[in-house]
Amino acid sequence: MTWPDPFPARGPVVEEAARMPAGFRAAAMAAGIKPSGKPDLGVLATTDGAASVGAVFTSNALAAAPIRLSRAHLAATGSRAVAILATSGCANAATGPDGEQDQAELAAMLATAVGEEPTLTLALSTGLIGTRLPVERLGGSIPTVVAALESTDDALGDLGAQICTTDSRPKSASVRLDLGDGQPIIISGIAKGVGMIHPNMATMLAILLTDAKVESDLLQAMLEGAVGRTWNQLSVDGDTSTNDTVFLLASGGARGDLVQPGSTAALRLAEGVEAVARSLARQQAADGEGATTLITCQVTSGSDDPSALAVARSVVGSSLVKAAVHGRDPNWGRVAAAIGNARVRGETVSSTEESLAIAIGGVPVFRGRPVAFNRTMVAALMSAPEVVIRVDLGLGIGVGEAFGCDLSPEYVIENSAYSS
Amino acid sequence: MTWPDPFPARGPVVEEAARMPAGFRAAAMAAGIKPSGKPDLGVLATTDGAASVGAVFTSNALAAAPIRLSRAHLAATGSRAVAILATSGCANAATGPDGEQDQAELAAMLATAVGEEPTLTLALSTGLIGTRLPVERLGGSIPTVVAALESTDDALGDLGAQICTTDSRPKSASVRLDLGDGQPIIISGIAKGVGMIHPNMATMLAILLTDAKVESDLLQAMLEGAVGRTWNQLSVDGDTSTNDTVFLLASGGARGDLVQPGSTAALRLAEGVEAVARSLARQQAADGEGATTLITCQVTSGSDDPSALAVARSVVGSSLVKAAVHGRDPNWGRVAAAIGNARVRGETVSSTEESLAIAIGGVPVFRGRPVAFNRTMVAALMSAPEVVIRVDLGLGIGVGEAFGCDLSPEYVIENSAYSS
Repeated sequence: MTWPDPFPARGPVVEEAARMPAGFRAAAMAAGIKPSGKPDLGVLATTDGAASVGAVFTSNALAAAPIRLSRAHLAATGSRAVAILATSGCANAATGPDGEQDQAELAAMLATAVGEEPTLTLALSTGLIGTRLPVERLGGSIPTVVAALESTDDALGDLGAQICTTDSRPKSASVRLDLGDGQPIIISGIAKGVGMIHPNMATMLAILLTDAKVESDLLQAMLEGAVGRTWNQLSVDGDTSTNDTVFLLASGGARGDLVQPGSTAALRLAEGVEAVARSLARQQAADGEGATTLITCQVTSGSDDPSALAVARSVVGSSLVKAAVHGRDPNWGRVAAAIGNARVRGETVSSTEESLAIAIGGVPVFRGRPVAFNRTMVAALMSAPEVVIRVDLGLGIGVGEAFGCDLSPEYVIENSAYSS
Repeated sequence: MTWPDPFPARGPVVEEAARMPAGFRAAAMAAGIKPSGKPDLGVLATTDGAASVGAVFTSNALAAAPIRLSRAHLAATGSRAVAILATSGCANAATGPDGEQDQAELAAMLATAVGEEPTLTLALSTGLIGTRLPVERLGGSIPTVVAALESTDDALGDLGAQICTTDSRPKSASVRLDLGDGQPIIISGIAKGVGMIHPNMATMLAILLTDAKVESDLLQAMLEGAVGRTWNQLSVDGDTSTNDTVFLLASGGARGDLVQPGSTAALRLAEGVEAVARSLARQQAADGEGATTLITCQVTSGSDDPSALAVARSVVGSSLVKAAVHGRDPNWGRVAAAIGNARVRGETVSSTEESLAIAIGGVPVFRGRPVAFNRTMVAALMSAPEVVIRVDLGLGIGVGEAFGCDLSPEYVIENSAYSS
């Protein structure tokens, strides 16, 4: 291994578990959306007034009804919320005005159950596109799930399991931090998806919670930065499903000082948010449908960060690279082709053979020209649970990484028989 | 079927066959690049001096050595050529300065064999990335293949078969036209690929020939227009392999008048070029690896043509739509999600549920909201060799179509074991 790891573990230690921060409650139950009878209705609520909210939604032009409702509510309240309604098994997307009405009715029911205004509620949903939510049945269940709200780690874990659909396991990640005021805080996140191995079109939901005290503008800035380097590197090129949603809520329940923009506390908090987001994104990539291997592409020496990020995305997004990794085939030519295809806003990212270097599993395979390597050894390295492809563009100081997984026949079989 | 076909057969009748236009010769042979022993070396040459050339190459930043050579030669000669060297089985891509030297040596050998300057030769290649061409062996074969050049339809067909790699069958298309001067002309094309079902990264080669008399600037303009509406709608978003190449050569061998820009003759010729390109692109889509169904997406009422073309590309490029078609699953929600994901230069294309309509196999499934339809009937319609998905955006007068194919487990199996 001749290259040092350009992406050593950064920021705080991440625990792959749900840890309920102070000031929040959660509960989940089966309410009859999923034919399987698994939990499909969940609520996340504050314990004490409104939390500040950062939010990133899909860039899909046909955003689902829960997203349109959440956007409107955040605009109306100045990005504050007391509760989130999570439904799974039905996306409530492409359902026309009926779907919009359904979502508004559910928001009113949740607001009644928690005793607040409907605009202080948010919603996220995942599942089949084009089907209606069973509003009447959910209406009967909302008071039940609200009555079951608990401020425990398990309750947050249950909510994490409820939002899953084709996931083989729930995803959660937490960090504990001292922001410098002597009041330790928690950042914890739950997530579902990316259900589909081809990131474009995968539905991705995540809820991140912290008990730090932060205003929504700063939360929003932190979330957008973290999403750009983590989930956007999973959801290729900003292409997202109708329902993709990430919420970041701050309760202030840890009773620490207000985190000021530009402060050391803000930097530490942002680092913690990104560490949780990165862990969740990696767990999602590793759990792609039919996936057997997490593919990480780490790009260095790009002319700038956006181009390095684009190259990393192009490599993990290539069906041919994914299929080669599935076959444990060190076919680095496909990596080279994907590098050359990287785009930033439609423009090809500059790269040249002369300055390009590629390593698979730490073994250099290309340095300005093909490098002789032990194919059997690299094929064996590719059987690991994570395959790291390193790309050095030799152009500047831009860096970026991206996460994907291999493409297996099982993916196609699973996705050929989804709705019928 | 409530919608009229927005894309009726246009232009001249296309014959799916190779028809050698006057003024050209071709030959192909097995020269030891392909381990299978199939033909892998071909030459296309003029019979009488240099032809005018239009050319469109990959936008991949790591373009292969044959492309870099062809670009340089066309710049040196004012876009004229007497011969094209076609090699298959080895892409000569990502081979560094050695590969560039190999390609130059082959050009010199071809030039010697046809008795012209090396800069009057072009090259195209397809196959594995990162391996070297067997220059010595090819050097022995070039005089042999040049000696075998013939001006017959079969010779052009043989060249079409030689450039194939994973194709299950060669692709060819021809039209006969009268440009108005009483001298009938031929436009004939051969093509290979798209080998891979996911258009991004597929290697695509095509050579179009005509015996009309046309200067290279006009040829170039015609070719770029046709490529934008045909091959670019197969190679998603301009993403192309390291080797993608389309040449359009005009010999003037039909002895007609020089085709003047802006004339009726030029419009007819452009229509003929596009008809040949469209036929070849459709044949390529239908022959994707593991494909069982050609998917055509026809978009109407876009705000403009570029956005309609982008929507059509997004639909046929969606892995989830492809997998649904493979499973004969009328899961139109995936079509809606793909529509919402369409981008022009990184910007989401506008669309709204309110004005959107979708039909699969002619059966409306969405008109502002989900439309009840007979799933069994639509599933049966999806078993046809071609599935047409129509999208009406209800916004303007932009139109566009795109071509793809279904995604099958066989694709993944085939691409998991390509180089090893």
